Amino acid sequence: MSAPTTHSYRRLIRFADTDAAGVAHFSRLLVIIEEALHDFFQHCGVSILDEASAWPFVSIHADYKAGCRFGDEITVALSLAQMGTSSLTVSFEATRKGGPLCFCGTATLCHVNPSKNTPTPIPSKTRDALGPR
Amino acid sequence: MSAPTTHSYRRLIRFADTDAAGVAHFSRLLVIIEEALHDFFQHCGVSILDEASAWPFVSIHADYKAGCRFGDEITVALSLAQMGTSSLTVSFEATRKGGPLCFCGTATLCHVNPSKNTPTPIPSKTRDALGPR
Amino acid sequence: MSAPTTHSYRRLIRFADTDAAGVAHFSRLLVIIEEALHDFFQHCGVSILDEASAWPFVSIHADYKAGCRFGDEITVALSLAQMGTSSLTVSFEATRKGGPLCFCGTATLCHVNPSKNTPTPIPSKTRDALGPR
Amino acid sequence: MSAPTTHSYRRLIRFADTDAAGVAHFSRLLVIIEEALHDFFQHCGVSILDEASAWPFVSIHADYKAGCRFGDEITVALSLAQMGTSSLTVSFEATRKGGPLCFCGTATLCHVNPSKNTPTPIPSKTRDALGPR
Repeated sequence: MSAPTTHSYRRLIRFADTDAAGVAHFSRLLVIIEEALHDFFQHCGVSILDEASAWPFVSIHADYKAGCRFGDEITVALSLAQMGTSSLTVSFEATRKGGPLCFCGTATLCHVNPSKNTPTPIPSKTRDALGPR
Repeated sequence: MSAPTTHSYRRLIRFADTDAAGVAHFSRLLVIIEEALHDFFQHCGVSILDEASAWPFVSIHADYKAGCRFGDEITVALSLAQMGTSSLTVSFEATRKGGPLCFCGTATLCHVNPSKNTPTPIPSKTRDALGPR
Repeated sequence: MSAPTTHSYRRLIRFADTDAAGVAHFSRLLVIIEEALHDFFQHCGVSILDEASAWPFVSIHADYKAGCRFGDEITVALSLAQMGTSSLTVSFEATRKGGPLCFCGTATLCHVNPSKNTPTPIPSKTRDALGPR
Repeated sequence: MSAPTTHSYRRLIRFADTDAAGVAHFSRLLVIIEEALHDFFQHCGVSILDEASAWPFVSIHADYKAGCRFGDEITVALSLAQMGTSSLTVSFEATRKGGPLCFCGTATLCHVNPSKNTPTPIPSKTRDALGPR
């Protein structure tokens, strides 16, 4: 049994991510998780959106532990937690440089055929590319 | 024992809410939940952000059931699920006009003192304003 | 010669529109202009995005005069400034309720065929629907 | 007379930047310009937001020449076009990797005192840091 795939993604908190409370808006932090996920897919050579595949989020769960401010460097550690027939669950932990855990959670995506928008089994090639090695 | 407070909020899906998959981006749907919550607070006469109070999201859980497209009219039904000493949990269900459930979930907010950014007991006045009547 | 078509659109500044400077982000104010434009199109019975038509922005010019804060009610006055063969220019003025001019400018859209993404003459039916009456 | 300062900034178009027309939303492309500007400021050691200084956009002008799609790598070339007593104008050109000009324009920022929100002369130290060398 091999270790789960973990992917690391770094990102500065941009001004447009912040809100009037002076911290990154909770919804923009989830966009960073999506970016980390796409970075992981790209790293694995898996397409996020093409004629045969799309990966809509079907579930998200996030706990916010500490605010992220403009200019903060955030590192997301992404782990493949589970891969079903047509769905994928990742867990994530985002930390501030030299600092504490900022937010964490899980996201589940479904592999769909874009033209039909129905769940479609994850191709074995994709399965191999994303899974533990 | 009175029924839980339920608040209804309507919103069109705007073009800037959509993404290249042709549906509203999952993060933007959570912004609509925040809008519904603020609309609820405003309806109750409770301030979202002032010198004494801020209400950061500390947890969000959302399940996406059906895509929302540009121009769709979404109705969010918001219910106060729980009120702790300094936190508040709402459950939400968003449906498309004449249509199915689009997404649902729960959100937990913490009442904090903005200058200290530490959890602060929800004032009794606020408690009364938000609670069942 | 008839007066130019003017359309009015109201919108609250939402929390997710704001940034760490405590005001609505300049990019989000332009999203409000797009919303006003789409509201105008809808009011005229003109589709913003379908198989035959899309209306990408080809130019935007905005001057920001006063900050807009969370909860502010903004009214956009939109006027059809010019209609070319395949392009459309609107001018806009956004004011705060009971307050001063917040931002103003012009936006130019091009009517394109979505499949070819090339400028296409605005259909006469659309021209009539949007133009002065 | 020295050449104008030019700063280069690279950025992938992220999924959350796109809209239902399949391209990056015009407002999100302006966010990329802001990112480029902040990257330039950081490179020059100039603060974007602190107790003494904030730099709100007072004017933006953008022309969109070609759509940017999810995954496209965009390079922004930013040039300091003019520096007044308390304002700054930059011109920008954004191109796709190995491709054509995507959008270009100018942005003017005003240096303000955040507590008073009034124009304040750009400090000579900042002037030197941002200007031609």
